[in-house]
Amino acid sequence: MTDAGEEMYELVERLYPLCRSITGDGVRATLDIVGEYIPLQTYEVPTGTQVLDWTVPQEWNIRDAYIADSGGRRVVDFAESSLHVLGYSVPVSATMPLSELRAHLHTLPEHPGWVPYRTSYYKPEWGFCLAQETLDALPDGEYEVHIDSTLADGHLTYAEYVVPGEVPDEVIVSCHVCHPSLANDNLAGIAVATFLARELAQETPYYTYRFIYAPGTIGAITWLARNAERVDRVKHGLVLACAGDSGSLTYKRSRRGDAEIDRVMGHVLAASERPHQVNEFTPYGYDERQYCSPGFNLGVGSLSRTTYGGYPEYHTSADNLDFVSPKAMADTLAVCREAFGVLDRNRRYLNLSPYGEPQLGRRGLYDALGGRSDTKQAQMAMLWVLSLSDGEHSLLDVTERSGLPFDTVATAADALHGAGLIKA
Amino acid sequence: MTDAGEEMYELVERLYPLCRSITGDGVRATLDIVGEYIPLQTYEVPTGTQVLDWTVPQEWNIRDAYIADSGGRRVVDFAESSLHVLGYSVPVSATMPLSELRAHLHTLPEHPGWVPYRTSYYKPEWGFCLAQETLDALPDGEYEVHIDSTLADGHLTYAEYVVPGEVPDEVIVSCHVCHPSLANDNLAGIAVATFLARELAQETPYYTYRFIYAPGTIGAITWLARNAERVDRVKHGLVLACAGDSGSLTYKRSRRGDAEIDRVMGHVLAASERPHQVNEFTPYGYDERQYCSPGFNLGVGSLSRTTYGGYPEYHTSADNLDFVSPKAMADTLAVCREAFGVLDRNRRYLNLSPYGEPQLGRRGLYDALGGRSDTKQAQMAMLWVLSLSDGEHSLLDVTERSGLPFDTVATAADALHGAGLIKA
Amino acid sequence: MTDAGEEMYELVERLYPLCRSITGDGVRATLDIVGEYIPLQTYEVPTGTQVLDWTVPQEWNIRDAYIADSGGRRVVDFAESSLHVLGYSVPVSATMPLSELRAHLHTLPEHPGWVPYRTSYYKPEWGFCLAQETLDALPDGEYEVHIDSTLADGHLTYAEYVVPGEVPDEVIVSCHVCHPSLANDNLAGIAVATFLARELAQETPYYTYRFIYAPGTIGAITWLARNAERVDRVKHGLVLACAGDSGSLTYKRSRRGDAEIDRVMGHVLAASERPHQVNEFTPYGYDERQYCSPGFNLGVGSLSRTTYGGYPEYHTSADNLDFVSPKAMADTLAVCREAFGVLDRNRRYLNLSPYGEPQLGRRGLYDALGGRSDTKQAQMAMLWVLSLSDGEHSLLDVTERSGLPFDTVATAADALHGAGLIKA
Repeated sequence: MTDAGEEMYELVERLYPLCRSITGDGVRATLDIVGEYIPLQTYEVPTGTQVLDWTVPQEWNIRDAYIADSGGRRVVDFAESSLHVLGYSVPVSATMPLSELRAHLHTLPEHPGWVPYRTSYYKPEWGFCLAQETLDALPDGEYEVHIDSTLADGHLTYAEYVVPGEVPDEVIVSCHVCHPSLANDNLAGIAVATFLARELAQETPYYTYRFIYAPGTIGAITWLARNAERVDRVKHGLVLACAGDSGSLTYKRSRRGDAEIDRVMGHVLAASERPHQVNEFTPYGYDERQYCSPGFNLGVGSLSRTTYGGYPEYHTSADNLDFVSPKAMADTLAVCREAFGVLDRNRRYLNLSPYGEPQLGRRGLYDALGGRSDTKQAQMAMLWVLSLSDGEHSLLDVTERSGLPFDTVATAADALHGAGLIKA
Repeated sequence: MTDAGEEMYELVERLYPLCRSITGDGVRATLDIVGEYIPLQTYEVPTGTQVLDWTVPQEWNIRDAYIADSGGRRVVDFAESSLHVLGYSVPVSATMPLSELRAHLHTLPEHPGWVPYRTSYYKPEWGFCLAQETLDALPDGEYEVHIDSTLADGHLTYAEYVVPGEVPDEVIVSCHVCHPSLANDNLAGIAVATFLARELAQETPYYTYRFIYAPGTIGAITWLARNAERVDRVKHGLVLACAGDSGSLTYKRSRRGDAEIDRVMGHVLAASERPHQVNEFTPYGYDERQYCSPGFNLGVGSLSRTTYGGYPEYHTSADNLDFVSPKAMADTLAVCREAFGVLDRNRRYLNLSPYGEPQLGRRGLYDALGGRSDTKQAQMAMLWVLSLSDGEHSLLDVTERSGLPFDTVATAADALHGAGLIKA
Repeated sequence: MTDAGEEMYELVERLYPLCRSITGDGVRATLDIVGEYIPLQTYEVPTGTQVLDWTVPQEWNIRDAYIADSGGRRVVDFAESSLHVLGYSVPVSATMPLSELRAHLHTLPEHPGWVPYRTSYYKPEWGFCLAQETLDALPDGEYEVHIDSTLADGHLTYAEYVVPGEVPDEVIVSCHVCHPSLANDNLAGIAVATFLARELAQETPYYTYRFIYAPGTIGAITWLARNAERVDRVKHGLVLACAGDSGSLTYKRSRRGDAEIDRVMGHVLAASERPHQVNEFTPYGYDERQYCSPGFNLGVGSLSRTTYGGYPEYHTSADNLDFVSPKAMADTLAVCREAFGVLDRNRRYLNLSPYGEPQLGRRGLYDALGGRSDTKQAQMAMLWVLSLSDGEHSLLDVTERSGLPFDTVATAADALHGAGLIKA
């Protein structure tokens, strides 16, 4: 666990300096690094492609950007942090007084030492983000502004990795890859997804697990547009975001509110006795917005530690490598593993001997000595599975009704299945 | 608001002295005065008309009534208060000792200074209502009793006023007009209904609003009998009673319990942060009893301040002009306006772009600058309306799920409708 | 009531010494004694008969059993208590050292003075149950063990008593008769069932009541197997067990959870203001396990005072005649009577005059004098029955919605039925 945590943290460190956006070479470089851990399939979708109600935008790439004072000193420099430039800034090369420049500067007055993260994807703008302290220290006068960016026809890039399961029914795990140097949002999510994928690939899970690495909103929309015919295969899903901070876990339900993933995550979090929060769906957040849009309405929830907007460091330079930890990411990973473990074993069985109890004793499934007031959990679990296996109750239902651990219930179901008393 | 309150109070003052009952000239005089505010359509239904399980009774009119002592002094006098005579008293002219008279006298021993309100509509009786103090002061001896009333074939009178709306679907607002000099029950209800009608008539509401002024029970039954064929048009309704006392508002749900009016009133009262109570339906009360009888089962609730039987002054002479206030009636009126405002705008929309989120930005419906952690309420409202506009959720559902103000949600829906993204 | 309590206690005293098991003469002797109170129909089902998933076992009878020390002194003696022998012990006659004998001895170390109750129905074993104190006092050395039992083809015995009702729909009351000298479990249940039957037989109840006296598990399974074709007649049922201890009452819901018997028992216990507990169904317990198995899924709950395993005396020699009382059994009987009284009167009616309220006054069902703020419970009950008699609500629904006593509601329904205003 600690090892996985440390490895995930190393991955986050490697990805941190890259300037990601919704398109461009930063995304490609990110996916290349992830591809060292798991074999990714990358897709390039041309600018102008119609995707649902949207159009794939021009590709944005940036090489350099700075504000220099009259002495030529770079007072704001993209080379120091990818956050310094407004995402999707058009190129600019000009000299102007500070008074005119101010309209293009974004700061966070309430956190004067932090640099905000800002973008302007769909309206041509240029701008810089900087600390309020930096701005306050700038004397009036002329400044040179330079953004060496390209906004041109190109591609939107996303990637997938599929862990085949026993059945073609799919679980999707989706994380956004469009944010620049923000550690929790979403390098931690990328790292957890990647190690989850790597671990699942060691096994043959019941479901087929599809990992999606795509830019937020437009990426998920592109994936949905290109997979609209196959989306019925997606039975469950999880969006991973803000997965590495020190806060406790937060699960946000799917729009359905009672999808199986919602029940599984709620159960696993409660049963684990971790402090946690379960929130109802709202149409604001990460790409669950798209997966849960009413036309698709997939059973996709979202797992985070502290959620977007729930911490002051959100979308600022303070969401840095100190803000995430190996331990927190390892914990998020562990909960995902537990949840998918439950999801994979959660079945509805049918009791094939539903009239009266079947005689468990002669099948070696029951203690021979009667009269005792204690009954073993395993026997209780068998009675519960037999009682509720009417085709309407899943093992998770049995678990919740009985108060027994899911694993005990699932193991009892295996024994009954082995004895031919129930069928899936 | 205060002006309307004062005007309503003046109307109550004018109506207060009249001797109303379930039939007779007191009702006609009442409707004549209301008719000075809004153009009423009056209906006269002959005695003997079969109305559902009931028969329109004989019409009762009264000119004078008194008890006089042996010296000819009127010790109880109808001219002082219409409450002094038992409603529907048959005529009498006799002299009898107090001991014999007592069987015809109604008092309230627990409130010795108050005169009770009593009736005997369907059993021929005569009687007087008086203060226990008055009775206690009467010396033994002979008394002359005289009731100059007429109980004869005639009519039951009720009236309607219709404010036409955009659609023929109706909201009924019903108030009983059969009580004599009782201010809260129901002159305040009559006044609020009248000013509500007058204000709605200044606009074109979405629904057609039908105001019904009818005697309690038999009047509502008569209206239902005569409108049985058209009752399907009634989609919502409100009975107004006890609308002017100083207590907080009480809404009583329809028999359905979850009719749209129930949800709207519950929402408006809660959102207004007024102290208030919401009660479940009971088959006792005012004319919601008839509108909600199981055969009709209309979505009709009842709005009161303090409800029947909930205050000691109920059905006594203490329910007088001091018991109601302009401020309380203005407050009841304001809540009705708010509720009908919500009802009128509450629609179920269908998202016409339900696969993924539509791109609000290019339609000018969304902030261009991304990355900020605060999102404006208006944008959140649009996302909520889009998410829940699946034909199953009304804007009130959206309001309750989102926690946003109804007006914000409805305004967002208007914007989305204007952009062609949703349809009603 | 006290008389019935005393009589039930006497019955328990008579049954207490008998050595009952799932088959054998102890059951027959028990049923013979019960047959002195009510005319039982006894059934004998041959060994080897296939019953659902089970087979009727060999019949077990026992005449004598003891452990004697080297001096011939009986240190454990079946003649003292039927608990001393492991139920269904195979015969044995041997001498062995204590060290070897120990494997066949059952004690309760945590209650050193008590003898446990143990059985081995389906695995051929022999054994003795004794107090830990007794065992501790035994010196090492040789002991003679002797069990004079027979395990041979024979019969399983159960009995029924039917109280015919107005309708063939049945209520079953089932109690297990397989436990040896345990007073609360289940002689108290047998006694309550017997007196309940005797009292119901004095009347003509609405439902037909079938009392079933059968050995636990295999007996209920045998009854179900032999009545599978007729089981649809069983509309409601109650398993009686542990009915005589000093604890408060516990009702365990049927597997359905909302069967009519569940609602009736819940209502009666709550309305009686007795301290009590209502538990959800679990697939462990008494013969509700079989009646509620998913194939049958009957509306059968279970009434106990303290439930199995809920008291340390459970399945030990401390569940003796001091552990049960006339008062407790009388109380259990009274609750059964109340519950079946409600069940028998609980109907769904249809309001035949559902459009507006019917005029109760002219039918003599309503106070003539109007205007009073108090309304009698009986009148309120009539309004509630009329309002909810739409074919979907039972009188118990009316009771719960109105908050009125069930008896008031049922009496109002009788009056309305008599007046032709409702039909069943």
